[in-house]
Amino acid sequence: MNTPSIGIGLLGMGVVGSEVARSLLQQADRLEQQVGRPLALISVLVREVARPRDPAIPPSLMTTSLQDVLGNPGIQVVVEVMGGLRPAYEAIRSALSQGKHVVTANKEVMANHGPELVRLAEDREVNLLYEASVGGGIPIIGPLRKDLLANQVSSIHAIINGTTNYILTRMSHEGASFEATLRQAQELGYAEANPANDVDGTDAAYKLAILSSLAFHSQVTGVDVYREGIAKLTALDFRYAHELGYAIKLLAIARREDSALSLRVHPCLVPEDHLLAKVDGVFNAIEVEGDLVGKVVFHGQGAGPKPTASAVLGDILEAARGIAAGRKPPRGGNLHNGLRILPIEELVTQYYLRVTVTDRAGVLAKITTVLGDLNISIASVIQKASDAASQTAELVIMTHLAKEAHVQEAVRRMARLDVVREVSNVLRVEQRA
Amino acid sequence: MNTPSIGIGLLGMGVVGSEVARSLLQQADRLEQQVGRPLALISVLVREVARPRDPAIPPSLMTTSLQDVLGNPGIQVVVEVMGGLRPAYEAIRSALSQGKHVVTANKEVMANHGPELVRLAEDREVNLLYEASVGGGIPIIGPLRKDLLANQVSSIHAIINGTTNYILTRMSHEGASFEATLRQAQELGYAEANPANDVDGTDAAYKLAILSSLAFHSQVTGVDVYREGIAKLTALDFRYAHELGYAIKLLAIARREDSALSLRVHPCLVPEDHLLAKVDGVFNAIEVEGDLVGKVVFHGQGAGPKPTASAVLGDILEAARGIAAGRKPPRGGNLHNGLRILPIEELVTQYYLRVTVTDRAGVLAKITTVLGDLNISIASVIQKASDAASQTAELVIMTHLAKEAHVQEAVRRMARLDVVREVSNVLRVEQRA
Repeated sequence: MNTPSIGIGLLGMGVVGSEVARSLLQQADRLEQQVGRPLALISVLVREVARPRDPAIPPSLMTTSLQDVLGNPGIQVVVEVMGGLRPAYEAIRSALSQGKHVVTANKEVMANHGPELVRLAEDREVNLLYEASVGGGIPIIGPLRKDLLANQVSSIHAIINGTTNYILTRMSHEGASFEATLRQAQELGYAEANPANDVDGTDAAYKLAILSSLAFHSQVTGVDVYREGIAKLTALDFRYAHELGYAIKLLAIARREDSALSLRVHPCLVPEDHLLAKVDGVFNAIEVEGDLVGKVVFHGQGAGPKPTASAVLGDILEAARGIAAGRKPPRGGNLHNGLRILPIEELVTQYYLRVTVTDRAGVLAKITTVLGDLNISIASVIQKASDAASQTAELVIMTHLAKEAHVQEAVRRMARLDVVREVSNVLRVEQRA
Repeated sequence: MNTPSIGIGLLGMGVVGSEVARSLLQQADRLEQQVGRPLALISVLVREVARPRDPAIPPSLMTTSLQDVLGNPGIQVVVEVMGGLRPAYEAIRSALSQGKHVVTANKEVMANHGPELVRLAEDREVNLLYEASVGGGIPIIGPLRKDLLANQVSSIHAIINGTTNYILTRMSHEGASFEATLRQAQELGYAEANPANDVDGTDAAYKLAILSSLAFHSQVTGVDVYREGIAKLTALDFRYAHELGYAIKLLAIARREDSALSLRVHPCLVPEDHLLAKVDGVFNAIEVEGDLVGKVVFHGQGAGPKPTASAVLGDILEAARGIAAGRKPPRGGNLHNGLRILPIEELVTQYYLRVTVTDRAGVLAKITTVLGDLNISIASVIQKASDAASQTAELVIMTHLAKEAHVQEAVRRMARLDVVREVSNVLRVEQRA
């Protein structure tokens, strides 16, 4: 008996697209067994047809025209792995409008246009699946949409950018500078030639927006997430943090505070015995806390062609199984909560301050007065060795819980003190992760 | 507009059932928002109607007759949280036969009758959902069925019994004996009055069977899993393991070896820097390795009323959303692989041997000869301090990869040597976890 195949159109043949094509072509039997019908790759959008490729794609399948794929009536599932906002966004919208199922790995599109596209997919009764947009192959979108759905989620703490976690791990282990470590990472292929989106927290902010929409049933887009990058960290920060029992990680944090949502990506001191402190190198981990489940952690490779293809192919199988069963897709995210986004100034957390001061008597009194005036209470102060040549010393101050606005004002006042050479770094501390 | 509610029947009001009932009664609005229709708890099977309960259940909803629930035409979803093989198995079969969707937390039923019940559910086009049967609230069944489905899974390494992990963690930290630690665990409620099923590995074996059927697309039941419990472990084993850089964990391991499947639950030496070695107390963790995704780890509370209710309620929501959308359930597990179960004698791994010997010259030569005759090569031998009173010493031997049948024969031959007082323990070592 010949069962009709399900037509797949692939937009993009970069490293992820190639890996997806390889499985579709070389693991066709295995995939067919999961669906009950064959999956047929019938059109692939590329930049240049003539280039040699691995896997080899029959030239008749390749096209440089987006419209060739989107307009092909034999294609039921469009797989978008081009990356970038444009023309991916328009391509996804067009495919959904025409009643095609869409699988995408595109965090930028989903973080900025997710809610609109989810509604469009619901209207057209097709799937819009995007497991690969966060955490590479780690299942996290599926669990949030389904398995954990009965929970009221209180927080997400995540390491969701492999490039920065690799850099921070190396800086921590080797005491090297940010610049030197970034160069190494670029040479090894763990950081891109233009690493800005990773290093400044933008990539992680996109992913946090996607997770937060699902977890908190509230519309969150990339611009809602406060972000700070890792470029200001120095070897000294790692050394002092370690002496105090902390690792430094770029965390993406979402926390529900009554009817508001605190959303932020920044480097963070994390207790060394916490699971997230032990996530090393390019690995990702996502901790979700819910009222029923408590804390669950998902850990794995957050990037790379094969892990990302694992998630893309999982979504292709889900769409294809639905098509094979004549099944309508499940409803998408329900954004009924409408939580307010908490401005960063209203954040209450603990802080680590590293201050370079003139090495003479009375300095500490002046600084603690600034903090005391703003109701910031000090958990510990360490005075680090003086630099005889420059006649400076360093103070490492850990605060109790304090309000961000007050800490920012304290930093401004400290910077104006004659005894302060520089407020060298201010880092937030996440005890509760 | 009044949308018709979806009728839920609950079998069992133990700690998990009570938590499920609490959410259905007290979080009704939140659950309705996820489904688009109200969920109505309309019948609850209990042992005794008159008992005081938290949450309070209207007496009119309670019954002591299974048939009252199964025969109620208003019930579309039957939730089985009685536990135990009977009458849970018959109740699930009867509910499915009548075209009702079933959500169960029952590892014993699913490990022993899963494939048959999955086929029955497919025939009747209803859901049979059992996320809560493994790992409490940790999403693992869903990810294996969907998100990771494109992978050829090569192995599972799991800590999926909280009671034994709690006991092993305490023994490791405190140098206490198994018996004393078990008693403590019982007093604290972490071990049952009759702890046999946990301590001898049966509970973990059931769960591994459930995971393996899904991961390897092959029919696996509880009896297919080789098991050894933790009762033979002593404080000495933990001390020596630690000196060698290992933790001791009760691991559930499934590994694909060509067209065979190695399935086993036993205490195991795990390198201390491995993630699984860091899973402490009652926590669970499941590591899945696939050809695309690499290693993914799922970590969380593997038991307890609330985490288990999180998984049960997630499944109830999935079934209810399908009913609300008029959607047929996805096909169940596809068991096309038919892998042979590898007998434990064919296992090839590394071993830790602790041997009590007479403290005199020539002992080591005799023992190494036994091992050499059987082609077992030694990675390291440590001679531990002698006991002057009994004139004995202890040898701790780590082997390279060796065949289980050979190691078992070596143990028999050693036990016959006049210089050997006792082969005190033999543990497998999992370097590759």
